[in-house]
Amino acid sequence: MALQIPSQMTAIEISEPGGPRVLKPTQRPVPRPGPNEILVRVRAAGVNRPDILQRQGHYPPPPGAPDIPGLEIAGDVAAAGERVQRFRVGDQVMALVAGGGYAEFAVVDESNALPLPSGFGYAESAAIPETFFTVWHNMFERGGLKQGETVLIHGGSSGIGTAAIQLASAFDAYVITTAGSAEKCEACLRLGADRAINYREEDFVKIVKEATDGKGANVILDMVGGDYIERNYDAAALDGRIVQIAFLNGPKATVNFSKLMTKRLTHTGSTLRARPVAFKAAIARELESKVWPLLAERRISPVMDMIFPLRDAWRAHERMEDGHHIGKIVLDVA
Amino acid sequence: MALQIPSQMTAIEISEPGGPRVLKPTQRPVPRPGPNEILVRVRAAGVNRPDILQRQGHYPPPPGAPDIPGLEIAGDVAAAGERVQRFRVGDQVMALVAGGGYAEFAVVDESNALPLPSGFGYAESAAIPETFFTVWHNMFERGGLKQGETVLIHGGSSGIGTAAIQLASAFDAYVITTAGSAEKCEACLRLGADRAINYREEDFVKIVKEATDGKGANVILDMVGGDYIERNYDAAALDGRIVQIAFLNGPKATVNFSKLMTKRLTHTGSTLRARPVAFKAAIARELESKVWPLLAERRISPVMDMIFPLRDAWRAHERMEDGHHIGKIVLDVA
Repeated sequence: MALQIPSQMTAIEISEPGGPRVLKPTQRPVPRPGPNEILVRVRAAGVNRPDILQRQGHYPPPPGAPDIPGLEIAGDVAAAGERVQRFRVGDQVMALVAGGGYAEFAVVDESNALPLPSGFGYAESAAIPETFFTVWHNMFERGGLKQGETVLIHGGSSGIGTAAIQLASAFDAYVITTAGSAEKCEACLRLGADRAINYREEDFVKIVKEATDGKGANVILDMVGGDYIERNYDAAALDGRIVQIAFLNGPKATVNFSKLMTKRLTHTGSTLRARPVAFKAAIARELESKVWPLLAERRISPVMDMIFPLRDAWRAHERMEDGHHIGKIVLDVA
Repeated sequence: MALQIPSQMTAIEISEPGGPRVLKPTQRPVPRPGPNEILVRVRAAGVNRPDILQRQGHYPPPPGAPDIPGLEIAGDVAAAGERVQRFRVGDQVMALVAGGGYAEFAVVDESNALPLPSGFGYAESAAIPETFFTVWHNMFERGGLKQGETVLIHGGSSGIGTAAIQLASAFDAYVITTAGSAEKCEACLRLGADRAINYREEDFVKIVKEATDGKGANVILDMVGGDYIERNYDAAALDGRIVQIAFLNGPKATVNFSKLMTKRLTHTGSTLRARPVAFKAAIARELESKVWPLLAERRISPVMDMIFPLRDAWRAHERMEDGHHIGKIVLDVA
């Protein structure tokens, strides 16, 4: 199954830092795979909040990464480097990329690509890598969430949140989540959350305490920051772990750190994009062995919000920024 | 070797919350050991900063602990509970206690007591438990300091600091420390610090970066808090661990948490006093196997500042509060 590889491709570039409209279709050379890389004919690309930060000029791509935005893709292998072992031209794959996803072609180290889970199409598959890699590493590896523990997941209706709720629930944690409307809370409960807190109406610290007999949450996955930081210290259990994966309310806060010490909390965080290929490959192996079977059985699946054509990437960003989405926003690359 | 056990003993009580002078000699019943406990005729008791907080009314004893201050003792076993296995009446021991150290007698679970290191007297031995248990757990177990890593130890000339410098140096870490005068910095260097920073004259963030080729410290042991918290985030290396064991400058600070996430830092902390007997026993076993040989060889030893008679405990507190001490302040219990 040979695929024609053109010399030029359509991609979405950030024409200048700014609002959604700075995302513009452009022509770029098709990238060439290195010895361990595959060239993927992209069929769908996931949209993530770091893409918005990059568009605004706040999150430059790491050294060596393309300037084209886009951190996750699904598509067909169009060519393979000489040392590639697992994948063949024509294979369907999804992959985590350090950039360049908003394009017709992208290259990726084969260890950062995975086969599509059985029964999954391109759009759903493109909605998986960034959120599932992020949640797996931060909630289970960094946060050490264990069966029977309580996890508090902020932003439960976001792409990250919907993946985190399903994974925590599938691995038998007690799941409490926050979201910004009754409709979003409903969606979280349907995904397996045991308790959904409408943060506009309820105090999450109080609810978490009530739901845990005063003990608090063992793990907190937070992408909000700001005034949530001290409230997370309040809501955490003894020996609780708080993992920071973004700062939607900003990274700066005035905090009383007493409870960090007296409750022996661990406050940590990480970003995925700048990590080395080998690190991401290790997460990929874990996901394939522990999560792919759950996807194949449809015990979990990415929550899809909307799909936009590649050239309307700016509308996808508008959708994410207006905050009404539930789950993942994906670009269709015809 | 039978010891006479009176029914009453002299102890130092906190007559009311306040300054050093509220510490007053009083008569109390001699405590009776439980089945797993030994009764120690105290010969020396260490003075620690939590004793000052307790005296001020800011740090109430945990449930079940005596109201008499004092967290570490050395002396002779005067009686043993029926299930005590290791120690016999007359044995010389040091112990970590949850309170009650400023007294002629104190009880402690035998698992939280240790034999005096070979060649050590009571005063030096009473200067060991609180600082060495605290440093061992926080710097090595919680902070995970490894051979060849860089550790930044704040308050290098304090009791905790002098123990931390010696232990980190003995286990082959690169040791950077902060202290408040040239004389204190000299003392830190003599104890094995590779670099001592006079924080009144130099910026520790800058010096740590310079001393580590821009990498930063892998572990930071901090008892300062306040504005040190964000500066610790700045001074830490990628994947750095910051362990908070006190807040001399207060627990409240305005902090930018960006680096916690982008550098994948771990900020944690703990207090020793409220931990269960079994937890402290596990540290005791580690110390006896890994640190007692170093003490016996005099490769490390507690740094002694001054010794006061038990009834002058208030003077010992004054000494600690004026901040001129280097190393440990101990009470002699004749």
